[in-house]
Amino acid sequence: MDIVEHMRDIGRRARVAARVLARSDTATKNAALAAIAAQVRASAGDILAANALDLESARSSGADAAFIDRLTLDARGLEEMAAGVEQVAALPDPIGQITDWNDRPSGIRVGRMRVPLGVIGIIYESRPDVTADASALCLKSGNAAILRGGSEAARSNKAIADCVQRGLAVAGLPADAVQLVGTTDRAAVGELLRMNEFVDIIIPRGGKSLIERIMAESRIPMIKHLDGVCHVFIDRDADLDKAIRIADNAKTQRFGTCNTMETLLVDAPIAARVLPPLAAIYRDKGVELRGDEKARAVIPQMAPASEVDWATEYLAPILAVRVVEGVDQAIEHIARYGSAHTDAIVTENRARADRFLREVDSSSVMVNASTRFADGFEYGLGAEVGISTDKLHARGPVGLEGLTSQKFVVIGDGQVRT
Amino acid sequence: MDIVEHMRDIGRRARVAARVLARSDTATKNAALAAIAAQVRASAGDILAANALDLESARSSGADAAFIDRLTLDARGLEEMAAGVEQVAALPDPIGQITDWNDRPSGIRVGRMRVPLGVIGIIYESRPDVTADASALCLKSGNAAILRGGSEAARSNKAIADCVQRGLAVAGLPADAVQLVGTTDRAAVGELLRMNEFVDIIIPRGGKSLIERIMAESRIPMIKHLDGVCHVFIDRDADLDKAIRIADNAKTQRFGTCNTMETLLVDAPIAARVLPPLAAIYRDKGVELRGDEKARAVIPQMAPASEVDWATEYLAPILAVRVVEGVDQAIEHIARYGSAHTDAIVTENRARADRFLREVDSSSVMVNASTRFADGFEYGLGAEVGISTDKLHARGPVGLEGLTSQKFVVIGDGQVRT
Repeated sequence: MDIVEHMRDIGRRARVAARVLARSDTATKNAALAAIAAQVRASAGDILAANALDLESARSSGADAAFIDRLTLDARGLEEMAAGVEQVAALPDPIGQITDWNDRPSGIRVGRMRVPLGVIGIIYESRPDVTADASALCLKSGNAAILRGGSEAARSNKAIADCVQRGLAVAGLPADAVQLVGTTDRAAVGELLRMNEFVDIIIPRGGKSLIERIMAESRIPMIKHLDGVCHVFIDRDADLDKAIRIADNAKTQRFGTCNTMETLLVDAPIAARVLPPLAAIYRDKGVELRGDEKARAVIPQMAPASEVDWATEYLAPILAVRVVEGVDQAIEHIARYGSAHTDAIVTENRARADRFLREVDSSSVMVNASTRFADGFEYGLGAEVGISTDKLHARGPVGLEGLTSQKFVVIGDGQVRT
Repeated sequence: MDIVEHMRDIGRRARVAARVLARSDTATKNAALAAIAAQVRASAGDILAANALDLESARSSGADAAFIDRLTLDARGLEEMAAGVEQVAALPDPIGQITDWNDRPSGIRVGRMRVPLGVIGIIYESRPDVTADASALCLKSGNAAILRGGSEAARSNKAIADCVQRGLAVAGLPADAVQLVGTTDRAAVGELLRMNEFVDIIIPRGGKSLIERIMAESRIPMIKHLDGVCHVFIDRDADLDKAIRIADNAKTQRFGTCNTMETLLVDAPIAARVLPPLAAIYRDKGVELRGDEKARAVIPQMAPASEVDWATEYLAPILAVRVVEGVDQAIEHIARYGSAHTDAIVTENRARADRFLREVDSSSVMVNASTRFADGFEYGLGAEVGISTDKLHARGPVGLEGLTSQKFVVIGDGQVRT
């Protein structure tokens, strides 16, 4: 069978399974999730053996350490995977909830019912844990999933997907509810991105180059995360202790995450007070500073920042620092160079905090808190599908609700329109 | 200036204006809307003169009666246009509202603030009233608008857009908040659909061929309406009076609207009781019936329906009729042939009504009410941007809220992540 027909067959089968899932009750979906978790635990040996083969291939083809790290599974990781699936089972089922009832003058009652999106295509790279994680989220939200993992993790993904299949069977749900694309042919991704009659949404999970390639090709809407050029602005009316604590944490708690601060903006009147203690902390933690002229006037050891630095997501122990003249210039800087992900102001001035909250057009805007809080679990969403840097449908951390839609339900008693 | 650079210049200026609009307060936006309405009334003579020239060109180029009808403005239409703009002013301002406050164990408070989408591109055909209507909706929701109307309505659109410009000036809002693309060059639309760095969403308003062309070309998300193949299913436990009233109204109240019933499904046990009185009503109202064999066994005068009929949006006094064996077959038929727009069941059986509501995957699902109710005003949304047949972002009738997004706001007191 050629690859186009193979993918379309997967799509058609997903569409049929999606209708079964959409009407499955919460108990059935939770039973499948519990069974999947049990299968992951029971098959740990098989999964680790498959992973060892993937790792061997990756090492022999010269993959770097970070790549090997993302690909590696261990017993503890598998237990976390199983527990993660159980956590999704424990979340409230969004499907079927009706809200916003409204009695209209015509006599009809109008409400909104939460429903699955239908078929979700997930395209990911070397992390095999996404196989379990994405399966669980799609299943709980009543969606069928088509999973396309990286070829380097093919054996690990297959072993985990087998657990998912056995779990679905235990609960009497269709095997096609979660399909792993087996072929490593690159054309499969192209076809997946084109078959909009079978796939309702694409969620790419991976690095920027993957996302950009998918954006260029896809004819299907996406929930995606692009850049995280996040800012902390320390206002002239900041509490200095809070400012230092937040600017430290936002940069150094983890360097490689999308909600890590990449540029620090400091209000001119307090630069001489706040920059020296922060520079000392960053120096101790091995963070390289790159500043504009005014920042370098306070901390001469700083390297000069170029125009490129302001727009760079380092994902590394490097921080750009700029001294600005007040909140207006900070907001301007963020609008020009930021990526609309997460930006914070540190201030005790309520009016300026409100302006920052309203005028900074980012998926998360914060007052006196670390940008590192931009996360589905920290926000109380229970699970995280990803963080969306788009504006439509879902913005910021996306929970189960992001995999659903709402339809209108109308209850009448014979009403007609006049 | 070439057309690409011309469009990109419009995009850049819209982006700048969008930031001003996003922080404009409700009073300013409403003042602009009031001034626009006043300008439309004061300039009625100019608008009608411009419209007369458009009509003259359209007639001499052989436009048909329906086209001329859509293009025609008159004094009463202009008063409705002005009143429509005032109605938008009277709606609550969605922007800046914060909901879903959630106190987290970490000490942060998380909420969601409603914000504009940014820049909205509206592409429409021959109806010049869209110029005022779309301007008002975008303005109220804090979005900048780029309007591209049909070339045949160019002079009418320009006269109305001039009123919008004068209204914006009265309120001190930037002229670039609403830009009408002046050139009739077709390439302008292509560029508008490609410049996703300047345009956040495209709303096409027009016939199916316009929408399909835009779908094929656009790199920007859309709120769009495609097909309305709507069904009424008369269940065996229907109240026959309600069934007849609803099936009559859903088809005959207006033939050309997207929420008009195109296929009637009748449960076999009551076909012989419900079809004869309905056939008499339809005959009196000039509706041609096309039925399957079982329907024709009851009403032999019916023409036979072909496979094509089940999937056709007639927008005309034609109705497809099928006799089905119960709610399952009705749901199957709708899943296979419907367009996921609006579908209704008539029944007194609660369990079957619930199944229909849950399992029919359409933007509006109804019990004992006419499909003609699927409308933003009937649902109490206050205004209607359009009806979306998509699942993402907005589904079904779209009000002002569909032109907005939500960002997360986080309020801390110096919290950092551990």
